[in-house]
Amino acid sequence: MSDHPPPSARTTMKRGKNRAVYSPDEIRSILESGLIAHVGVTTDDGPIVLPMAYGIRDDEILLHGSVANAMLRAGRGIDVCVTVTIVDGLVVARSPLHNSMNYRSVVIRGTAHPVTGRAEEAAALKVINDHIAPIWDTARPPSDADYKQTMVLSIPLAEASAKVRGGDPIDDEADVAGPHWAGVVPLRTTWGEPIDSADLHEGIQPPPAVTALSGLDAHR
Amino acid sequence: MSDHPPPSARTTMKRGKNRAVYSPDEIRSILESGLIAHVGVTTDDGPIVLPMAYGIRDDEILLHGSVANAMLRAGRGIDVCVTVTIVDGLVVARSPLHNSMNYRSVVIRGTAHPVTGRAEEAAALKVINDHIAPIWDTARPPSDADYKQTMVLSIPLAEASAKVRGGDPIDDEADVAGPHWAGVVPLRTTWGEPIDSADLHEGIQPPPAVTALSGLDAHR
Repeated sequence: MSDHPPPSARTTMKRGKNRAVYSPDEIRSILESGLIAHVGVTTDDGPIVLPMAYGIRDDEILLHGSVANAMLRAGRGIDVCVTVTIVDGLVVARSPLHNSMNYRSVVIRGTAHPVTGRAEEAAALKVINDHIAPIWDTARPPSDADYKQTMVLSIPLAEASAKVRGGDPIDDEADVAGPHWAGVVPLRTTWGEPIDSADLHEGIQPPPAVTALSGLDAHR
Repeated sequence: MSDHPPPSARTTMKRGKNRAVYSPDEIRSILESGLIAHVGVTTDDGPIVLPMAYGIRDDEILLHGSVANAMLRAGRGIDVCVTVTIVDGLVVARSPLHNSMNYRSVVIRGTAHPVTGRAEEAAALKVINDHIAPIWDTARPPSDADYKQTMVLSIPLAEASAKVRGGDPIDDEADVAGPHWAGVVPLRTTWGEPIDSADLHEGIQPPPAVTALSGLDAHR
C-alpha cells in the first residue's frame, strides 16, 4: 500500500501488511481528520489508555492536560503510544469471522517531552485548540492562571505508522456463489447546529469557525 | 455523579472526580453504545495501543483477533487496559483553555485470558459480531478453518470506571459577562445505506439487521 519503508522495527506492521501505510503525508492526513487520540502509558500498576485532545504540527503530535493529570506526569520523558482511529463503516461478509470495519488508524510510538516556555506553550496550545476548528483567536486570551494549570507534551511523529482498510469484504471464494449478502454500511460523523450556553448573554453570536462546522463531516 | 464506590484503588478517578461514574449499569450502557475499543498492553519495547472490535457479555468484555496477532499474544494472561470512548460534541468556552469535549468514556483495567473450547469460542465470537448489529445468525456458519484462525480474549469488567462530560462549558465567572460566545456543537455518528459488495450476485438483499441500521445513531 505504500512505497515508504517503516521508520523502525517496532513500527513495522506484523499483521495486515497490505494495509500498512508509512507515507508521512498519508499519516498526517489521517491525523488531521481524527478527533481524539487514545494515549497509552505504562504505570506501576499496568498499562493505562486515556482519550485526549490533540494537535498536529510539523513532525510532532501535541497533547495537553492539567499539571495534575497523573498520566501526563507519568508520561514525562517516557515511552507513550498515541493512537488515532477513524471508523468509516461496518464491513459485512458472507461468513461472520470475515466481518470487519473500514477504518483509518495511526499508531505513534515515542517519547513524550513537555513543551516549556510561555511562548512555546501558547503556540502549542493554539495548535491543539484549533485542531477541530480555529477557535483560539476569537476567544478571550488565556491568562497566567490558565497557563499555570496546563501542561503540554510533544511526541515526535518519527515512529508513526498507519493502517487503512477500505472497500468490500474479502470472502472465501466458495462463499461468493452462496446466498449470503456482502457489503458495507458506511458510517458518517457530522457536526450539528451550535447550541448556545444557558448562561450566554443575548445577542452574542458564535464565531464563524463554529458556525462553519454545522453539517460538515467531522473526519473530512 | 455516582453512588457506587470505585472498584479498586487504581480505578479511582484522580482528576475530574465529579465526572466519575462507577455504576455498573451506566458503564455497561456506555460500552453497549460504543463502536470500537482502544486496547493497551505493555510490550518489551514500550506501551502499544490498538483499535479493536469488542463485545459485552455479563461481567466481561470480549476481544478477538487472529492467533498471530502479536498484541493478543502478548495479552494472554497479562495486564491490559481497554478504553471505549464516544465523543458527543465540541464544547466551546469563552476562554480557549476551558474548551473541552462532551464525551462518554469507559476505562477497564484487568487481566486478559483466552476463551477456550469450540462452544465457548463460538458463543463469545457471536457476542463480538453482534455488538453493532445481529449479523451472526444470517451469515454462513463459521467453519473449522475460520475458528482456527481466531482467538478470543475475555477481560472482567470488575475494574471498570467511566467518565462522562455533558452540557455547557464551565467558564470563569468574570468571563460570562464578556463578549465571547459559549456553547456546544453536537456531534452525531450515523449509519448510511448499505452498499452491495462488487461481487454480490444479483437479487441478494441485505439481512434485516443490516437494513435496520440506516439512519440510526451509531452511539444510541
